Amino acid sequence: MAGNTFGDLFRITTFGESHGKLMGVVVDGCPAGLHISSNQIQQELDRRKPSSEGFSTARKESDICEIVSGVFEGKSTGAPICILIPNKDQREKDYSELKDKFRPSHADYTYNKKFGFRDHRGGGRSSARETVARVAGAAIAKLILKQFGVSIIAYTKQIGEIALDKPYSEYELSLVYESVLKCPDKPKEEEMLQHIRKIKEEGDTLGGIIECVCTSVPAGLGEPVFSKLNADIAAGIFSIQTVKGVEFGEGFKSASMKGSEHNDVFIMEDSKIKTETNRSAGIQGGISNGMDVFFRVAFKPVSTLMMDQKTIASSGEAVDINPRGRHDVCVVPRATAIVEAMAALVLCDHLLKNQMSKMDSIIK
Amino acid sequence: MAGNTFGDLFRITTFGESHGKLMGVVVDGCPAGLHISSNQIQQELDRRKPSSEGFSTARKESDICEIVSGVFEGKSTGAPICILIPNKDQREKDYSELKDKFRPSHADYTYNKKFGFRDHRGGGRSSARETVARVAGAAIAKLILKQFGVSIIAYTKQIGEIALDKPYSEYELSLVYESVLKCPDKPKEEEMLQHIRKIKEEGDTLGGIIECVCTSVPAGLGEPVFSKLNADIAAGIFSIQTVKGVEFGEGFKSASMKGSEHNDVFIMEDSKIKTETNRSAGIQGGISNGMDVFFRVAFKPVSTLMMDQKTIASSGEAVDINPRGRHDVCVVPRATAIVEAMAALVLCDHLLKNQMSKMDSIIK
Amino acid sequence: MAGNTFGDLFRITTFGESHGKLMGVVVDGCPAGLHISSNQIQQELDRRKPSSEGFSTARKESDICEIVSGVFEGKSTGAPICILIPNKDQREKDYSELKDKFRPSHADYTYNKKFGFRDHRGGGRSSARETVARVAGAAIAKLILKQFGVSIIAYTKQIGEIALDKPYSEYELSLVYESVLKCPDKPKEEEMLQHIRKIKEEGDTLGGIIECVCTSVPAGLGEPVFSKLNADIAAGIFSIQTVKGVEFGEGFKSASMKGSEHNDVFIMEDSKIKTETNRSAGIQGGISNGMDVFFRVAFKPVSTLMMDQKTIASSGEAVDINPRGRHDVCVVPRATAIVEAMAALVLCDHLLKNQMSKMDSIIK
Amino acid sequence: MAGNTFGDLFRITTFGESHGKLMGVVVDGCPAGLHISSNQIQQELDRRKPSSEGFSTARKESDICEIVSGVFEGKSTGAPICILIPNKDQREKDYSELKDKFRPSHADYTYNKKFGFRDHRGGGRSSARETVARVAGAAIAKLILKQFGVSIIAYTKQIGEIALDKPYSEYELSLVYESVLKCPDKPKEEEMLQHIRKIKEEGDTLGGIIECVCTSVPAGLGEPVFSKLNADIAAGIFSIQTVKGVEFGEGFKSASMKGSEHNDVFIMEDSKIKTETNRSAGIQGGISNGMDVFFRVAFKPVSTLMMDQKTIASSGEAVDINPRGRHDVCVVPRATAIVEAMAALVLCDHLLKNQMSKMDSIIK
Repeated sequence: MAGNTFGDLFRITTFGESHGKLMGVVVDGCPAGLHISSNQIQQELDRRKPSSEGFSTARKESDICEIVSGVFEGKSTGAPICILIPNKDQREKDYSELKDKFRPSHADYTYNKKFGFRDHRGGGRSSARETVARVAGAAIAKLILKQFGVSIIAYTKQIGEIALDKPYSEYELSLVYESVLKCPDKPKEEEMLQHIRKIKEEGDTLGGIIECVCTSVPAGLGEPVFSKLNADIAAGIFSIQTVKGVEFGEGFKSASMKGSEHNDVFIMEDSKIKTETNRSAGIQGGISNGMDVFFRVAFKPVSTLMMDQKTIASSGEAVDINPRGRHDVCVVPRATAIVEAMAALVLCDHLLKNQMSKMDSIIK
Repeated sequence: MAGNTFGDLFRITTFGESHGKLMGVVVDGCPAGLHISSNQIQQELDRRKPSSEGFSTARKESDICEIVSGVFEGKSTGAPICILIPNKDQREKDYSELKDKFRPSHADYTYNKKFGFRDHRGGGRSSARETVARVAGAAIAKLILKQFGVSIIAYTKQIGEIALDKPYSEYELSLVYESVLKCPDKPKEEEMLQHIRKIKEEGDTLGGIIECVCTSVPAGLGEPVFSKLNADIAAGIFSIQTVKGVEFGEGFKSASMKGSEHNDVFIMEDSKIKTETNRSAGIQGGISNGMDVFFRVAFKPVSTLMMDQKTIASSGEAVDINPRGRHDVCVVPRATAIVEAMAALVLCDHLLKNQMSKMDSIIK
Repeated sequence: MAGNTFGDLFRITTFGESHGKLMGVVVDGCPAGLHISSNQIQQELDRRKPSSEGFSTARKESDICEIVSGVFEGKSTGAPICILIPNKDQREKDYSELKDKFRPSHADYTYNKKFGFRDHRGGGRSSARETVARVAGAAIAKLILKQFGVSIIAYTKQIGEIALDKPYSEYELSLVYESVLKCPDKPKEEEMLQHIRKIKEEGDTLGGIIECVCTSVPAGLGEPVFSKLNADIAAGIFSIQTVKGVEFGEGFKSASMKGSEHNDVFIMEDSKIKTETNRSAGIQGGISNGMDVFFRVAFKPVSTLMMDQKTIASSGEAVDINPRGRHDVCVVPRATAIVEAMAALVLCDHLLKNQMSKMDSIIK
Repeated sequence: MAGNTFGDLFRITTFGESHGKLMGVVVDGCPAGLHISSNQIQQELDRRKPSSEGFSTARKESDICEIVSGVFEGKSTGAPICILIPNKDQREKDYSELKDKFRPSHADYTYNKKFGFRDHRGGGRSSARETVARVAGAAIAKLILKQFGVSIIAYTKQIGEIALDKPYSEYELSLVYESVLKCPDKPKEEEMLQHIRKIKEEGDTLGGIIECVCTSVPAGLGEPVFSKLNADIAAGIFSIQTVKGVEFGEGFKSASMKGSEHNDVFIMEDSKIKTETNRSAGIQGGISNGMDVFFRVAFKPVSTLMMDQKTIASSGEAVDINPRGRHDVCVVPRATAIVEAMAALVLCDHLLKNQMSKMDSIIK
């Protein structure tokens, strides 16, 4: 139900298939008067593009977006904003072999069970290509967040077994904008690149971990019970293909800590209430407290291998899947843009919701 | 916005404060004709109750539930089902000291920032007592799931640093029903109990990890894009107080695996399509594939310590918090009932949604 | 789906059956810091009570409400506000004859078709008693609206064939608060009362028309396309039992007017933009323009007659229905409170939604 | 909030401005496996087109629709279906005069108040052109309804003061498909046409009444309390531009009837339970009973006149509006397609919702 819509007040609806005519998004709930240009959206889309380094898909998509509604004379009008991104390099034939075979750890089998049949061209709607529409919609959320000083940055913390070992505060995160692997640690990035190349030669694939850091999030975002800020972020992040885990702050490590080791003590700093440590990841009782909101996301390795695999055909017969199509060895670097997008959508939605938390904010 | 409602088609709305008159839940969307008795709901509530072993809160709540609407002659009528659970042992005065102090890692500060003031009696609505209403509502979801053969069982996998090291398939999970710590591994449970007693004496608290296993989930549940089965489960689980991480299948470990190590190969077994391994945790492309759905949940240690802590008063002044109130040393065992409840709510909601995935299912 | 919840941001969920234990409402989305007392809610409930004049149901309900959550020290906390209203004078036995008979123009047959069976005690949830919960929830909406200066008043414009013939502006509407029939025209009221008494003797029933006037509604409420202010009001009003028609401004009469006769010309008055006439009923393009919002509602006559009627039993057999139970001859006067309630819920919801229409309102 | 989305399970989201690049709709919730062709959608769009008879707008739109997602090999896939309809004959300059003037009874003033500014080109999103997207989306709803045998037909019952005086059952409603004015009464249509021509010469405009009849609606559609079938239909119909009234069955006339005159008595006919009369319009207690569902809709006259009108500029200055643009004298005939569209969307949504009303329907 409404499985293609995300958000309550700031809400996106995406559509389009990997090898259909176009990908698109409708943004509803953007307040009127926001300055919006295609360029700003394009910048976000470019960050999601495959790298030229050879470990990404060879599919070449220019991802040129067009705003077709809701913006007039450079400003949002309050009407729904539709953004279209044509598919240029779709190749239906590459996928004809897959029509009757279930690729291991893909959505082929489950789509067939749910819908009775499926658009088998490149995974149809289960393809990560679908996320281009989210990134376009979230670009507008980011513009709103920017007005409040909120910034979001996601970086590659681990690829395969190669992991950054310092906390995010010890890196210059803005380095990711110039990094092929969106990794702020140059030597580690070099190691990762070599590892990716080796795995690619083997026809195999890799997963990894992304950490996302949201700074200057105003205190008060998130609802106390079901729509906690962390719950909504987790829902958004787990809606990204191949995500297998999400943790905030100390995450799974907190399970083996004692309360006295984990509690964040309140202090005064520059006449403001802060916490001395931030193990809560900026969220207490589901509501932001003004400290950095941060979380880590585990991505499983890409399912499409460049090697033969055994599987079952829809007939039930045992068959082989032979490598075909154009795929990434590791999606983690590109996925940083998608993680940021989902975080931005949630924060923006909660920013709007929070306008109505107190009578004092309404009666102006 | 609607922060106290969970679910789309099968939907609960909870209300009530920890030290108010009662806790309650309205279940809307329960199909008519389901046999429901208070006893069945009571059983679930009893599993959530504090243990008598001394590591749980000393607050004594009988948690007697009453169905006040929506059930007629033992069956659901299609009308909203309201269940009330009176609070018996509320003690407002225990909390008067806390009115103007922000307890570390609690929701006191964030509630004040969001709402301007707060019901400080025992955390008001941020208290884990709120979950009694969820468990009551989810008891009805479980009755529906039972009709489809779905069963859900959550167990204590780790408390503090003491962890079970075998996969769930190697335990007799039904042992949890007789286990104080909801742990199917007797020797480990004994270790855990001793550790809890020791920590209690220190006035400190513990966290832990719960694993939840859902069996006989029909293939086809979950929506392809935003309302993926794993995304909705994660949203439900992260809405539980003190949860810091959720992972499905191999979870964070998958980040360092290769595709060839992680992929689940399809095979035929008893004329049915299955996967040889189940690293996907029964969900592919956001949709259940008929294998077990399972996930792990990290709980941080309880924030309320039985030792003095430093903090800030609403005036901004540095103050001490002295131990008060009646609290658990470790909530993990009791939280198994809550984890099951949230999983049941999500599965039931998706079971209903999936009735409409194909024209063939509708035109009967 | 969610058929018992109304509203998006300011949202009520009602529960309870006519002859069950209690009626209840959960209000979610009330901003924190609103002063609320049971007395204020009680006043609204009292306006909905049966009159003592003999034409109303003889069922005696004190309708004493109790706020059981969400209000602390006299103010809303931002948590869901649950209000319970116990049923005192339920008499299940009066209805046992109706178990297997379908009362004409009641919901008996349709409930059976939809749900397979029904709670036959006094119509269960289809009874107008259900509206007591709406009135309680809407009392809180009215408190919010009051902060913005909005006032809502509904009056009896017609009962049977006896109708008020002047526009509302020519009456002193506040007279309804002292009027048995909620009618501001004393001589007409007397006529109506006599007519009602006569019809009662015949064992028959009456319908009528209510007009509702909302003043000082700020300009800008309502959404341009689907959630137009008039559309949402109509949805709320048609959700009241026995409503058969809703019209705004000139309503059905506008169908035979010419554009030059119907258009409202903009003028300046006291340095404010107004319209010279208000045939648009204060709503243009689905959005309020600052003029009075007003509409009329047609109620069919009550279906329960105090005379024998023919009908069909669930067995398919032709049977007689004999008069039983305690019913109103005409619900119109009592329904004024319900019409106001639904209007208040819609206006309050849109007032909150409109907080986010422009960036300028958000960035303060 | 989500003001551009309609429906819960079968849900459309529309976008696009009257003089922007295109109009579009995303249909989410269409079950997989429905046969869909562009031709079927095109037929519906053609019924909404301006007539060539000279009383409609001179704007020439081919309204060629394109399905760009969600349909594969002629069948719905379960993915969102996006349909685009390019605007061909937009003429921005015609509207430049209107930038700073508020047209009487248009949405110009209210949009400015709500959003701070507006897309003034032909009313932007408040234009009736927006409904082309609804009709496209509803064409898919109609295909689903057809599978259940449901048919919907709306006809012109009145234009200006010229009204059909017989009940719909005495007309051959399918005649509307060949009627310029969508009127099944040939002589009345001739009268209406002459009246329209006369009014056009005067530079004035007309309103009218449409009646919509839905046959073979299965019993059980609609929810008991807030989401009553009539309430949801009314919400959909009042979301159409210029609608001022909606009434079901006897409508406003029922207000002056006695219960004994209005009640529909149940009878057996061909071993089926029916009602002898159908004053309830096929809906009792908010739920369909298997009889025809029918309602009437009042449209005010078109606001754009081909004569000078006085108004106010945004500066506050009194100014004249001179006739400009291309407009209908009377929209009623074209609006029949839109009324049918909204009815189809509601019925289809409730048809899906009703799949889950009973356990018996779910456990197959």
